[in-house]
Amino acid sequence: MPVNLPAPDPESLFPIAGVQIGVTEAGIRKAGRKDLSVVLIDAGASVAGVFTSNRFCAAPVQICREHLASGKGVRAMLINTGNANAGTGADGLFRARSTCSALAQKLGIDVKQVLPFSTGVIMEPLPSDRVEAGLAAAIADVKPGNWMRAAEGIMTTDTIPKAFGVQVMIGGKTVHITGISKGAGMIRPNMATMLGFIATDACVSQPLMQQLALELAEGSFNRVTVDGDTSTNDSLVVIASNQAGHATIASLDSPDALVLKSAMLEVARKLAQAIVRDGEGATKFITIMVAGGQDTVECRKVAYAIAHSPLVKTAFYASDPNLGRILAAVGYAGIEDLDQAGIELFLDDVHVATKGGRNPAYREEDGQRVMKQNEIAVNVHLGRGIASDTVWTCDLSHEYVTINADYRS
Amino acid sequence: MPVNLPAPDPESLFPIAGVQIGVTEAGIRKAGRKDLSVVLIDAGASVAGVFTSNRFCAAPVQICREHLASGKGVRAMLINTGNANAGTGADGLFRARSTCSALAQKLGIDVKQVLPFSTGVIMEPLPSDRVEAGLAAAIADVKPGNWMRAAEGIMTTDTIPKAFGVQVMIGGKTVHITGISKGAGMIRPNMATMLGFIATDACVSQPLMQQLALELAEGSFNRVTVDGDTSTNDSLVVIASNQAGHATIASLDSPDALVLKSAMLEVARKLAQAIVRDGEGATKFITIMVAGGQDTVECRKVAYAIAHSPLVKTAFYASDPNLGRILAAVGYAGIEDLDQAGIELFLDDVHVATKGGRNPAYREEDGQRVMKQNEIAVNVHLGRGIASDTVWTCDLSHEYVTINADYRS
Repeated sequence: MPVNLPAPDPESLFPIAGVQIGVTEAGIRKAGRKDLSVVLIDAGASVAGVFTSNRFCAAPVQICREHLASGKGVRAMLINTGNANAGTGADGLFRARSTCSALAQKLGIDVKQVLPFSTGVIMEPLPSDRVEAGLAAAIADVKPGNWMRAAEGIMTTDTIPKAFGVQVMIGGKTVHITGISKGAGMIRPNMATMLGFIATDACVSQPLMQQLALELAEGSFNRVTVDGDTSTNDSLVVIASNQAGHATIASLDSPDALVLKSAMLEVARKLAQAIVRDGEGATKFITIMVAGGQDTVECRKVAYAIAHSPLVKTAFYASDPNLGRILAAVGYAGIEDLDQAGIELFLDDVHVATKGGRNPAYREEDGQRVMKQNEIAVNVHLGRGIASDTVWTCDLSHEYVTINADYRS
Repeated sequence: MPVNLPAPDPESLFPIAGVQIGVTEAGIRKAGRKDLSVVLIDAGASVAGVFTSNRFCAAPVQICREHLASGKGVRAMLINTGNANAGTGADGLFRARSTCSALAQKLGIDVKQVLPFSTGVIMEPLPSDRVEAGLAAAIADVKPGNWMRAAEGIMTTDTIPKAFGVQVMIGGKTVHITGISKGAGMIRPNMATMLGFIATDACVSQPLMQQLALELAEGSFNRVTVDGDTSTNDSLVVIASNQAGHATIASLDSPDALVLKSAMLEVARKLAQAIVRDGEGATKFITIMVAGGQDTVECRKVAYAIAHSPLVKTAFYASDPNLGRILAAVGYAGIEDLDQAGIELFLDDVHVATKGGRNPAYREEDGQRVMKQNEIAVNVHLGRGIASDTVWTCDLSHEYVTINADYRS
């Protein structure tokens, strides 16, 4: 059961002019599952992507980078679940290229205008014949309003589709933003998430897109973790179809850009948090804010040390205010000259530790009250500066072990 | 159930001349448990220790460092379980000092000649009154042959006491080495383990002791991990009572030193591996060897990335040869210029992946056969140099979650 994550609101999933989606069941791993999606993008769109920092990045990630770098523009995306096409060597690259070629041929576009995405089990050959056999049905299904089907079509161990949309006014025109994401385990994005796609009809010049995608990833997908395992397939793609009719945004610091970025960040953050809320076995959604650091890098180190500690995560699962485990994680986060006497720890509004020791006013029942909630804020103050950073994570439950012990069976 | 870890063999636990041990039940956290131990050391021994790198190190760790630095020699150690006296601020230091003073007074020695050790729950006040009330009974219990009682007396979530001994000949004299350790969770030592004590009657000059302790830790406790959580209380103390009658070892490169170090390392490694074999919820003992690196640092990074991955650990638990998870961990271990095309992966004798992809000759049933064993060797070759390193770990099971969700209740 995801933590406070309702099913997407269909009314908020705005069709994006210039972007059409088709989904089908191609039987890639199991029969009777939506597992193949195509996204068709009108000519003239601005597109950028950020990808996993995992050196064992999947074949489709390598091809996405290559195709984006070609500068030919992006006209189509091809997404399969059931197989990650990672750890597959030269054969994996060959199969991914073959599926891109097949789609390009059907659409009459250049193969380099196709971006491929795969997610699922690692180190098994991609059944590219099934992907190619499914293309016709996926293309026949395309329409602009298919965001919900696409959100369903990219799920793996997700228990619920993840999709959000917002609209804002820019230059007197209504601009729409709709995004989808997937992911529940192997989640510690480091450039992007398992898979995230955000599209808008806003007009943004292509040279700004890479920076926009980076900023969105930094404020959202790069701040969540379920289990600390950075995936081989993390990909976030941002599409501006340039069809909303307002003056093209040519600087990311302009007032129009700030309106657009803030709205897109809202979508990106909801998509990223949805991955944590639906994290494998998650029963709690935890916000970890670390303040008082010398820079954001050290704040993030501490936040991730807490977020990745199996002992902290199991204490959350048990609603056990065994909060010394949080202090221990702060201590081993890697700040060499950290002075424990400067540390303050809060759990929501409860002041747990002061000057590195238990707060004399802290009462176990107050900690217990907060630990029983299914949304908890951990607030650490390092007492050595003014920087801060925030990471979102979930607890570690029996269900996580069950899911990952049985994933392939 | 620990993995292939029998109860200690009492006949191998040699009394060490010059070292006496007493254990009692002081009711520190729960009644009816051996939870307080004293170790009395004859004047003239050489002693050194290595301690946690956690910046939230416990009060007793801070005092151990201070007392060792005083150069007054070590005449006694005071060890309690049930409470870690960590995350306890100035009050924790005060209480730890108070227990050292009480023991020093009873023994007629300087307070700085006492080393304190605590292990148990974090961020709760040490019941120093109960420690002090238990001292008389612990002292009354002392004898040289009490190693097994001490191994029992330092257990927390351990399911079995951990103690090993060996004897070797040096300079025509029989030299004895006996050690004990404890720890099962919050195990990712970074200088030492939760608690480890190794004593020998060998004659080693004091100036060599710190280097000897470091070398022993590096080859043993600093190569194991259960859950990646570096404890606040990690301590390893090495004692040479200088009573075996051979010529004092004055260089760590001498033939006598090599004999002694090799025997002591055997004990240290068995103690460290025992912690993994008895790791919380462990059902498998995993040896991770990474070779072909440019230096040992990068090999260790990769080994720990594999050892800490919850996805890899749950796959071991499930005996599921979902071995792409190992490749993913290799990829995110932090080697920036790693070329996946150079990676080879073996599971025992089974060649799973070659050139970064699935080995065409690999058969799932071979992987399955090895994954079902309760001792498994993972062998990764990075293909970029001649360095190698080894780490020992265990799997992640339902029992781990159960133990840590219920630890305090």
